Amino acid sequence: MPTNQNPKTYTVILQPIGRRAIIQEGMNLLEAAQSAGVELASLCGGIGACDSCRVRLESGALSQPTLEEEALFSQDELQAGYRLACQARPLSDVKIDIPPDSLTTPQRLQLEGQEAEVVAQPAVRAVEVTIPAPHIHDLRSDVTRTFDALRAAGEARRPTLHPALLSDISYVLRRENWAPRLALRGEEIVAVLPAGTPLLGLAVDMGTTKLAGYLVDLASGRTLSKAGAMNPQIAFGEDVISRISYAENKENGRRVLQERMVQALNDLIETMCAEAGAAHWQIVDAVIVGNTAMHHLFAGLPVAQLGAAPYVPAVSDPLELWATSLGLKTAPGAYVHLPANIAGYVGADHVAMLLATGIPETQRTALAVDIGTNTEITLTVGGRMVACSCASGPAFEGAHIRDGMRAAPGAIERVQIAGSQVRTQTIGEQPAVGICGSGILDAVAEMLHAGIIDRRGAFSKEHALVSQENGRSQLVLVPAEHSGHGRDVLITRNDINEIQLAKGAIRAGIDILLQVSGISAEEIQDFIVAGAFGTYISIESAVQVGMFPGLPRQRFQQVGNAAGAGAREMLVSLPRRQFAQNFARQVEYVELSAYPGFINKFSNALFFPESES
Amino acid sequence: MPTNQNPKTYTVILQPIGRRAIIQEGMNLLEAAQSAGVELASLCGGIGACDSCRVRLESGALSQPTLEEEALFSQDELQAGYRLACQARPLSDVKIDIPPDSLTTPQRLQLEGQEAEVVAQPAVRAVEVTIPAPHIHDLRSDVTRTFDALRAAGEARRPTLHPALLSDISYVLRRENWAPRLALRGEEIVAVLPAGTPLLGLAVDMGTTKLAGYLVDLASGRTLSKAGAMNPQIAFGEDVISRISYAENKENGRRVLQERMVQALNDLIETMCAEAGAAHWQIVDAVIVGNTAMHHLFAGLPVAQLGAAPYVPAVSDPLELWATSLGLKTAPGAYVHLPANIAGYVGADHVAMLLATGIPETQRTALAVDIGTNTEITLTVGGRMVACSCASGPAFEGAHIRDGMRAAPGAIERVQIAGSQVRTQTIGEQPAVGICGSGILDAVAEMLHAGIIDRRGAFSKEHALVSQENGRSQLVLVPAEHSGHGRDVLITRNDINEIQLAKGAIRAGIDILLQVSGISAEEIQDFIVAGAFGTYISIESAVQVGMFPGLPRQRFQQVGNAAGAGAREMLVSLPRRQFAQNFARQVEYVELSAYPGFINKFSNALFFPESES
Repeated sequence: MPTNQNPKTYTVILQPIGRRAIIQEGMNLLEAAQSAGVELASLCGGIGACDSCRVRLESGALSQPTLEEEALFSQDELQAGYRLACQARPLSDVKIDIPPDSLTTPQRLQLEGQEAEVVAQPAVRAVEVTIPAPHIHDLRSDVTRTFDALRAAGEARRPTLHPALLSDISYVLRRENWAPRLALRGEEIVAVLPAGTPLLGLAVDMGTTKLAGYLVDLASGRTLSKAGAMNPQIAFGEDVISRISYAENKENGRRVLQERMVQALNDLIETMCAEAGAAHWQIVDAVIVGNTAMHHLFAGLPVAQLGAAPYVPAVSDPLELWATSLGLKTAPGAYVHLPANIAGYVGADHVAMLLATGIPETQRTALAVDIGTNTEITLTVGGRMVACSCASGPAFEGAHIRDGMRAAPGAIERVQIAGSQVRTQTIGEQPAVGICGSGILDAVAEMLHAGIIDRRGAFSKEHALVSQENGRSQLVLVPAEHSGHGRDVLITRNDINEIQLAKGAIRAGIDILLQVSGISAEEIQDFIVAGAFGTYISIESAVQVGMFPGLPRQRFQQVGNAAGAGAREMLVSLPRRQFAQNFARQVEYVELSAYPGFINKFSNALFFPESES
Repeated sequence: MPTNQNPKTYTVILQPIGRRAIIQEGMNLLEAAQSAGVELASLCGGIGACDSCRVRLESGALSQPTLEEEALFSQDELQAGYRLACQARPLSDVKIDIPPDSLTTPQRLQLEGQEAEVVAQPAVRAVEVTIPAPHIHDLRSDVTRTFDALRAAGEARRPTLHPALLSDISYVLRRENWAPRLALRGEEIVAVLPAGTPLLGLAVDMGTTKLAGYLVDLASGRTLSKAGAMNPQIAFGEDVISRISYAENKENGRRVLQERMVQALNDLIETMCAEAGAAHWQIVDAVIVGNTAMHHLFAGLPVAQLGAAPYVPAVSDPLELWATSLGLKTAPGAYVHLPANIAGYVGADHVAMLLATGIPETQRTALAVDIGTNTEITLTVGGRMVACSCASGPAFEGAHIRDGMRAAPGAIERVQIAGSQVRTQTIGEQPAVGICGSGILDAVAEMLHAGIIDRRGAFSKEHALVSQENGRSQLVLVPAEHSGHGRDVLITRNDINEIQLAKGAIRAGIDILLQVSGISAEEIQDFIVAGAFGTYISIESAVQVGMFPGLPRQRFQQVGNAAGAGAREMLVSLPRRQFAQNFARQVEYVELSAYPGFINKFSNALFFPESES
C-alpha cells in the first residue's frame, strides 16, 4: 500500500461506475460519493448505525475500522476490505468498489445504460431584477413596478404574485433596496429574497414507518443534506388501516395525524437546514411522496373511503398545495407538489419508485415490486404497464410472528441451516432477541431446503432440529442460553403460515399481472425489488419460498429507497415531474379481489415450491 | 282615494321609472321597490332611522305615517304625500314617485338613457351533475369521477377543485348521494352543495367610517338583504392616517385591524343571512371595495408606504383571495374579489363608484366626486379619464369644527338665514347639540349670502347676528336656552377657516383636472356627487361657497352609495368586473402636490366667490 503522504486532497475512484471525486483530507467515503453525485445508500444518515453504505477497498489506504465497523463486519470481511463508507476516511488516493446493494438508484443506469443523473430543470427558478424605486413622478404600486421590471427583463409576460407574499412585499422590496432575487414558479413570484440567495427544494418520502427527507440545491440538483425520522403517526396505529380508523373515528383524528406529520417534517427541515447551513425560507419548492393513505392524511383529505370497499382515493391527480396552508416551514410562497397516485393502495411513492427505476421508459419486460404490509407491483411489457396491490400483511415487519420484531439491534436478519447446525446473524451482532423480516424469510427458505417443513408448511416431526412444545412442532433458532433475553428464539407452525399468506399474496399478484399481460414469468428481463425491506432480503430465499419466480439471479436488482430518489427527480426536474404525471394516468390498475380466479391463484401460491434438495 | 278592498296583493307603480311591482299585503314600499329591481336608497337598512328612502305618494292609499315619519317630515311634507318607503305599506294599488336623491344608481340611467339593471352573469354558476358512485369495477377517485361527470355534461374541459374543498369532498359527495350542486368559478369547483341550493354572493363597501353589506342571489342578481355597521377600526383611529400609524407602529397592529374588520364583516354576513333565511356556506363569491388603505388593511398588505411620500399602494391590480384565508364566514372555497385601485388615495371604492355611475362609458363630459376626509375626483372628457385625490380634511365629518359632530340625532343638518333670523333643522328633530357637515356647509353659504362673512372668510363685526366672545367674532346658530346641552351652538372664524381649507382643496382638484383636460367648468355636462355626505349636502350651498363650480342645478346628480352599487354590479356580472379592471388601468392619476401651480390654485380656491347678493 502507498504510505500516507499527508496531502491536502485525495482522489477517490468509485467503481464500477468509474466516477472520480477529489476530497479534502478528513472527509469520509460517503461524502466523497455524494460530492461525485453517486447516490450511496445511507439509511441511518451516516452515523454508522446501519450497514447500507457498505463498500470494499480495492486499492489505497483508509483509516482504521471504527468500533461500529468492527461490530458489523466479520474479520474475514474486514480482511477482504469491506468498510462502511460513512466511517472510512481515505489516507491516500483510493479506489473503492460499491456493491449494487449500496446504491440507491444505480438500477436505472443498468436498465437503460445511461446516466442516472437528472439535468436540473426545476419548477422554480431564480431571477434577479433591478426595480425602479417609487418617486413622485412614478407612482406605480410596489407590485406593479415589480411586474413591469420582470416584463422588461423578458422573464415573464403576465407575472403574478403568490398571495402569501402580499403581507411583506413592500418591506422586503425596500429592505433589498429594489434589487432582490425573485423565485419564479412559471410566471408566479413565490419568494422575494436577498440577491444571490440559493434556492432550495425539499423532497420527502413519507413511509408508513419511516420518513426520509432530502434538501436539494435547485440550481445544481445537488442534494445538500438528508435526514431520516420515524413516522410519528406510529403512535396512532402501526399500519395504515388502524390510522385510517383513528383518523375517522376519533375527534379531530385527521387533524392530529396531519399535525404530527407536519411537525415531524418541520423537524426534518430544521435538521437538514442546520446541516447545510441554510435557512428554511430558502425552500421554495417541495415534492412529497407516500402511499395513498399517507398522502391523504398529510393533505388533510378524507380517508374513510380508503378504509372500506371499494377503497377509492379521494383524489388521484397531482395536488399543488400551499406549503404554509399545510403548516410547513418553508418560504411562505412555496408549493408542495404531491404526485399522482394510481389507486387506493398504489400511491405516489410507487409512482416515484417507477420514475426512479426507469420502468415507464423501458421497452424491456420489467417488474418492480415494493414489499410492505401492502405490496405494490407494476409489470411493464412492451410499454404497457399494469399494477396491483397485494395485502401481504405485516409479517415481514415482524408482526404476527411469535418472535418477530422490526429490523433493530438484536434482530436475527440472516439464517443458515447446515446439517444439524442453525447459524444466525443479528443486527449489530447483538445477542438475538427476535427475528426480523429478512431473517424469517431466510429461516423458512432454509427449513424448506433442509426438509424441516414440507410444501404445505407442515413440520417434519422426525427432523433432528424440530422440537415440540405443548404438542406443537417448532424450530429453535437461538436457544435461551445464547439469546439476549434468556428465552428461546424460535419459529412455529403459525409463523410459517403467516409467511405463506404473505408470500402467497405477493406471488398471486405477480402471477395475475403476468396473466393480464399475457406473458410467462421467464420472460421478465428485469425484476426490481425496491424499498427498505426489499433491499435487505435474500433474493435466493425469496425465490426458494416461491415469493418470487425462479429467474436467474442477475435479473434481480435491489434498489433501496427508489421512492425517495424519484421524489428528488421530480423536485429537480419539471419535465420528469410532468412525465410522472402522464405515466401515472396510463398505468392500468388491476383490482385483485375483483379478478376472476384470484382466490385459486392465491390458494395455489400458499404452497411452497418443490424443494430442490 | 279608493277604499281598502282587502285584496291579497297590490300593484305598486314606481315613477318616474315606470317599473311595476306586485306585492303581498303587509309589505312596505321599500320591499316593493326591491322586488321590482329598483334600487331605493336605504342607508339605515330599512328601520326608519334615516330619510334616504324618501318617496311621494301620487295616488292610492298607504298606512298611517309612523312615529319615525312624523318626527322626520313636516306637516306640509306629509300633506304633500312624502313618506319613508321602509315605513309605508300600501292599502290599495298605489302610484309612487321616487325623487332622484332616493335612488342609489339611477344616474347611470340618466347618463346613458338605459336600464341601470345589470344582467346577471356572475363569476360563479351552479351546475348539477349525477356522478356514478364508486364500484369494484369503477375505482376512479372521488374527484376524478366528479371531473369526468362535469366533462361528460359539457360543463368544463379541464376542471379543478379549490383546495379548501379537499378536506370534505368525499363525505359531501356521499351525503348528497352523488347528485350534488356544484358551484363553478370558471372551471374551478368552489363549492359542493345540496342540489337546488341557491348560490349567494356578498358585496361590501368598506368605508373609513361605515360598512355597508349586501347579500345577493347570484342567479337573479337580486339583493336579498342588506346591513350596515360602523367600521370597527374607528377604535384605532378616526382617519386613515392614524390607522396606518397604528398598523405599522403597534405590535401586531396590522393583524388586529384586519381581524376587527373580518369580525365586523362576519357579523354583517350573519345578520344578512338570518334576514334572508340563508346560510353562510351558500356564499360562493364576494366583491369588497374600499379606499386603498381599507383595502390594504383588509387584505393584510403593508401600509407604511401609504403613509409616507410618495404614497404608493403595495398592490394596485385586482386581487382574488381565498375567503377562508382571510377568515371570512363563507363557503370554504369562495374567493374574495378586491377590485383594482388607481392610486394610494384613489381606491377601489372610487372605481366601483365610477362603474355604477357609468362614467367610463359615457361620451359626455362628466365629473364624479366622492367627498370625505379625502376627496376623490374623476373627470371624463371624450372618453379620457383623469383622477385626483384632494386632502379635504375631516371638517365635513365634524372634526376640527368647534361644535362639529357626525351626522347623528341632534346634529344641525340644515341652516337658513333670513334677515336677522337663523333657522336650523336637526337630525331626528332633536334639540341641537352640534352641527354636522351639511349643516356647516349651509351655515357658511348662508353667512356669505347674508354678508356675515366676506370673500376671505372674515366676519363683518357690524352685522346684527355677529356676537363677540373673548374678542373673537362668532355666529350663534342655536342659543344655549334652545340647545340640547345648555350651551350655544355656534360658528367661529376658525370653523370658517376649516371649511375654506376643505372646499379650497376640492375646488383646486376640480380646477386642475379641468386644466389637464383642457376644458372649462361650464363644459361639464354631468356633475355627479357620490357618497353618504355628498348625498346630504345642499348643492346650492356647495356652489355658493365655491366648492363646486356654478353650473345649472340640473347638471348635478347626488347618487348616494354608488360604491356599494358598483360592488354589487361587479358581484353580479363578470363582464362588469372585467370592465372595471380595464378602465381602472386607463384612468390617469394626477398627483396634485406634483402638479405645477397647485399651490396657487389652492390659495385662490380658499377665497369665497363674490356673493350674488
